[in-house]
Amino acid sequence: MRRKAILFFIILPIVASAQILTGFIGGNLEKQIEWEQKFLKIPKASNCERHLFVLTEEPHPAGSEAGYKVAEYIDSVFKSYGLNSKIVDYWVYLPYPQDVSIELVQPYKVKFELKEPTWLWDKDTYDDNIFTFFNAYSPDGEVEAQVVYVNYGLPEDYEKLKEMGISVKGKIVIARYGKSFRGVKAKVAEENGAIGLIIYSDPMDDGYMKGDVYPRGPWRPEGAVQRGSIYYMFEYPGDPLTPGYPATKEAKRIAPEQAKSLPRIPTMPISYKIAKEILENLSGPNVPEGWQGGLPFAYHIGPGPAKVKMRIKSEWKIRQIKNVIAEIRGYEEPDKKIIFGNHHDAWVYGAVDPNSGTSVMLETARALSELMKQGWKPKRTILFCAWDAEEYGLIGSTEWVEENYDDLVKNAIAYINVDVAVSGKDFSASSVPSLDRFIEELIKSVVDPETGNTIFAEAWKRQNKSISKNISNPPDTARIKFGRLGSGSDYTAFLDFAGIPSIDMRFTGPYGVYHSQLDNFYWMKNFCDPDFKYHETMVKIVGIALMRLSSCDYLPFDYVNYANEIEGYINEIEKDYGDLLKGKGIDFTNIKEKIKTMKLYADSLKMKQRTFLTLDVSKLERKFTRKVGLPNRNWYKHRVYAPGYYLGYGTQVLPGINEALSFNNFDVALKEIKLFEEILEDIIKETQNLLKPKLGVK
Amino acid sequence: MRRKAILFFIILPIVASAQILTGFIGGNLEKQIEWEQKFLKIPKASNCERHLFVLTEEPHPAGSEAGYKVAEYIDSVFKSYGLNSKIVDYWVYLPYPQDVSIELVQPYKVKFELKEPTWLWDKDTYDDNIFTFFNAYSPDGEVEAQVVYVNYGLPEDYEKLKEMGISVKGKIVIARYGKSFRGVKAKVAEENGAIGLIIYSDPMDDGYMKGDVYPRGPWRPEGAVQRGSIYYMFEYPGDPLTPGYPATKEAKRIAPEQAKSLPRIPTMPISYKIAKEILENLSGPNVPEGWQGGLPFAYHIGPGPAKVKMRIKSEWKIRQIKNVIAEIRGYEEPDKKIIFGNHHDAWVYGAVDPNSGTSVMLETARALSELMKQGWKPKRTILFCAWDAEEYGLIGSTEWVEENYDDLVKNAIAYINVDVAVSGKDFSASSVPSLDRFIEELIKSVVDPETGNTIFAEAWKRQNKSISKNISNPPDTARIKFGRLGSGSDYTAFLDFAGIPSIDMRFTGPYGVYHSQLDNFYWMKNFCDPDFKYHETMVKIVGIALMRLSSCDYLPFDYVNYANEIEGYINEIEKDYGDLLKGKGIDFTNIKEKIKTMKLYADSLKMKQRTFLTLDVSKLERKFTRKVGLPNRNWYKHRVYAPGYYLGYGTQVLPGINEALSFNNFDVALKEIKLFEEILEDIIKETQNLLKPKLGVK
Repeated sequence: MRRKAILFFIILPIVASAQILTGFIGGNLEKQIEWEQKFLKIPKASNCERHLFVLTEEPHPAGSEAGYKVAEYIDSVFKSYGLNSKIVDYWVYLPYPQDVSIELVQPYKVKFELKEPTWLWDKDTYDDNIFTFFNAYSPDGEVEAQVVYVNYGLPEDYEKLKEMGISVKGKIVIARYGKSFRGVKAKVAEENGAIGLIIYSDPMDDGYMKGDVYPRGPWRPEGAVQRGSIYYMFEYPGDPLTPGYPATKEAKRIAPEQAKSLPRIPTMPISYKIAKEILENLSGPNVPEGWQGGLPFAYHIGPGPAKVKMRIKSEWKIRQIKNVIAEIRGYEEPDKKIIFGNHHDAWVYGAVDPNSGTSVMLETARALSELMKQGWKPKRTILFCAWDAEEYGLIGSTEWVEENYDDLVKNAIAYINVDVAVSGKDFSASSVPSLDRFIEELIKSVVDPETGNTIFAEAWKRQNKSISKNISNPPDTARIKFGRLGSGSDYTAFLDFAGIPSIDMRFTGPYGVYHSQLDNFYWMKNFCDPDFKYHETMVKIVGIALMRLSSCDYLPFDYVNYANEIEGYINEIEKDYGDLLKGKGIDFTNIKEKIKTMKLYADSLKMKQRTFLTLDVSKLERKFTRKVGLPNRNWYKHRVYAPGYYLGYGTQVLPGINEALSFNNFDVALKEIKLFEEILEDIIKETQNLLKPKLGVK
Repeated sequence: MRRKAILFFIILPIVASAQILTGFIGGNLEKQIEWEQKFLKIPKASNCERHLFVLTEEPHPAGSEAGYKVAEYIDSVFKSYGLNSKIVDYWVYLPYPQDVSIELVQPYKVKFELKEPTWLWDKDTYDDNIFTFFNAYSPDGEVEAQVVYVNYGLPEDYEKLKEMGISVKGKIVIARYGKSFRGVKAKVAEENGAIGLIIYSDPMDDGYMKGDVYPRGPWRPEGAVQRGSIYYMFEYPGDPLTPGYPATKEAKRIAPEQAKSLPRIPTMPISYKIAKEILENLSGPNVPEGWQGGLPFAYHIGPGPAKVKMRIKSEWKIRQIKNVIAEIRGYEEPDKKIIFGNHHDAWVYGAVDPNSGTSVMLETARALSELMKQGWKPKRTILFCAWDAEEYGLIGSTEWVEENYDDLVKNAIAYINVDVAVSGKDFSASSVPSLDRFIEELIKSVVDPETGNTIFAEAWKRQNKSISKNISNPPDTARIKFGRLGSGSDYTAFLDFAGIPSIDMRFTGPYGVYHSQLDNFYWMKNFCDPDFKYHETMVKIVGIALMRLSSCDYLPFDYVNYANEIEGYINEIEKDYGDLLKGKGIDFTNIKEKIKTMKLYADSLKMKQRTFLTLDVSKLERKFTRKVGLPNRNWYKHRVYAPGYYLGYGTQVLPGINEALSFNNFDVALKEIKLFEEILEDIIKETQNLLKPKLGVK
């Protein structure tokens, strides 16, 4: 095959570059397009609906019997399609809520009910197995103190409070959800001396100020709560007791007291119905600009008179969890892997999060196996991974990556994550920069089921509202902006720990039932994707992505774009810290030189890989990782992307350098700058290596 | 005196320009500073408090017995200070509410109570003479229709509705207060075919989203209403039946049907307590971005199901109103006048609006008459004008200006308006650009009673928060941005009709009781200016302004600044319409040339008026007016400033040109551009005249 391809080299590049299908050459290009056309006819919305109905039958948190049933269902479905599927178990440390209570004790007494409301037409709201209001990994404890409102509980919010002369020492703080991962809110509250944390959904961010609330619309009603883990994932994700290595049954475990990833102050989530009663009873100064939420009174900071007593007691246990791994084996390079993953555990029913993604995965598996019956086969292996215990701390995926690290580093081509696949109709993706172009081509091949335009055209129009009003199709030069990967889903271990190029994709929309019991089948049918058209569309997108990556002649990765992005990040640092750094003799001349060189070589690589068809370009991503992790958290190995230590879900670019600078730690910053120079040098050398032998061929 | 001044010319300019007291030379400068120091010791907060207490004893709308009592009180106080005071009557067309009602008829029936709530500690909330919920000049009528929510009721809001396919034809529209004058809301609703208009205060703009509501804080509680006139003042202010001429007892009147200034669809204001019940019952599409208010549910547009019946019947009558005019006669140029004005009529008690200004006026009169007892006397006449019927449509002041037009055009130096004098602690001023520098100097001479810094320093810090944090005093080069005069108070006839340089000054703050019964003495004492220090401070500011303008050797007016501002306005037009206009052969080359020339001459004038001490520079302002008014409303004569036709209170700069352009009327725009060229030419000629004879002296 390769030799044949080379014969085509002289005439094809021009044609191929005019095609929107980078990675294929000659007859393979044509064949691929044919197979894709066949594939697009297979996915069925009704199958996604049927799977979702089964998957969301019961509340199925990780480690529960219902969770096991879900894993077994997934396994059996894979097997029914003829896929080689197995369940991979780990034994991990998971708390279940046992005794959680919160009461107002001042200025008057109210014991709050920690149950979401019921609705007659929705049987799912009556299940006794639904977890109460629960932030997983909150330590056990009972605290009683006056309350202080801390806005979103970001570091700058506490700064503002200090400016106002208000201390949260010994207080219980109440923060609204949003702007940072809830675990970060717990960490920052702890650092500032609070003895307890209450997190609530404010109607300004997630409620009636956004739109109609359930049951009139898709937004969060006053009684619905956002559960969720406050695990310090920014320290390390995965099982708390086996950091960096797999939590097999016999693995050596550290004591919980040694786990840096376990939070330290009692924390619980509440609805805005309860928050109203607490916040209404705060006195002290009025809130500063930007702190007012959507409840119908002027917010105050406190402390007090509202005084709250909260008690949290969990059942802490090592519990068995179940990843399901299925494969379609590649016929030419079976060791090489394209991995498609999503978790299957949910806080309650998880219709959107995660099972819209799970139903997409199951239907993708069926569609590809159907295609195989028609004669299609992938060159490389495709893995379908349904992870467990993502909600607790990306545990299933992390343990698996830790266990299969050596193989993955050697053989993984890319990881595609589709978690909250369908919460609306607006396509959105995050990725490493080398894959931006790949995603653009991908979504030019699939159409929006409502408008008939390509998903690319719809996404471009949304991103360019001011100019796109009267344009039906984006211009040829149109580009889309993609997000960068922070954390919050299972790509984390793949990208940040193992350096595997990753993508996260979803359809987003007005999603006001996140981590509530209302994220169920009824909501999906009535407010989100009634006929599962967007589920079907996501199957098409992921399916084609898997087909392309598993069968391309050369990898459509673009490291020029990566270099450009890094250049932008360096410029940002110079803008923010330039003068300060000059004073300390630190500059970026070397780095900038190296980025220029990287770009030159990356450009050659892009032009020439059509000739020598290497797959090794995916390994360039690995070069951004180092055995020794980030200065403040060794598990995180990637030097271009990490979840921000004080952001949680948000992306911190160049985390080694940027976080050292933001903590005013110039020695560390200098070391990290030197390290990043070395990384760039390695990448340049590796690119030269990739170019050299093949250049000989020419 | 003049000759003596000229002798000093050679040595003084340098010294004088280092002083912050433009307008005085030689010994006069020193004397003025001495007198000002003496003056600053006289004003007493307690007098302001005492006056306010009396003025706000009863609800005193224009034309009422209580209103007459207030006028007589003011007159008697002026007289008690030895001032020559008189009451000047007009007979004007004023409606009083007689029968106003509103009820929800669909989806269920509620008849709303149109009374503000009562509070035991505040006797003022129990008065039977308080006007009900009332928009003055609403036509009589009964309408019943489905309701449509129209956001602020701006032209662009109706545009948005059209885009969404929603018509308001035959509907009753509900608009929130804010962004435009309520009369404009009525006009735009009428133009769009609505048959009735409801205006309410949304808690997002004026309620709990801003801060604590009464009685916990100064903001509007759910039951309080903003009354106010919807008179089409943008057509012409003043008595509806005597447009452009004084409403004396025997004046010839037009029929009400002929009055272009009278609104045409029934309109009434409601509280957000009532609005909640109407808005909650709207269905139809969700509101677009930016339309959501602060009520605790997601807003919908309608139409319906909420259906409303409203009935308005007023008692329409020609009523007598009473301006009070008092004077301190100038000893050198008694015909020349500095006019200090404010109205005395209020919708209810009017503690802030207008009587904080009235009490300031009375105490200023006392302080200056005290100073006269110590030997001070002004060269020019100072007038104190307490206007009636401002709330209805700037009526008292407009009639007086129309009656005294010839004298004013000849002799008025400047008009200073202090209406809502104290609603907080933050100084703010609007003016013509020639007076910016004068105000800066003025507020450098008076200190803030709480901080001890100058009012200038405080205002500068507020305007430069990002850089002023660690600066205790503004740099020498610091400038302040002033507003420009639109409409909404009694300077309108002075500036827009007669071309008299005007200033409007106030202390602003969290003022949530505007035009409610809660704008009373209790509110002022508890939430605004408890010991009347800011009232006293405003007396000092106005007093010194009057002393300077009445006694300066030459006028401290700066037409270079005026020219710069106009240049900015022209640049804006070019930015917004440049290409369009080029296509029509319209450009601004001539105007820009003339502005440059104006600047040159204005600069000479500024430098040289110290020598020849002319007062005539104040007349340059008159040149911006033309006998023939603006194309769409003849009463408005000024070609640089007018209230925007669709803004009401907001300023429209270069109204002739800009409004023609915004209505796509290019013929008119071209005419107005030519006219403005002529105006600039006239100003240049006039400036040359002012320079010429005096240059001879040199």
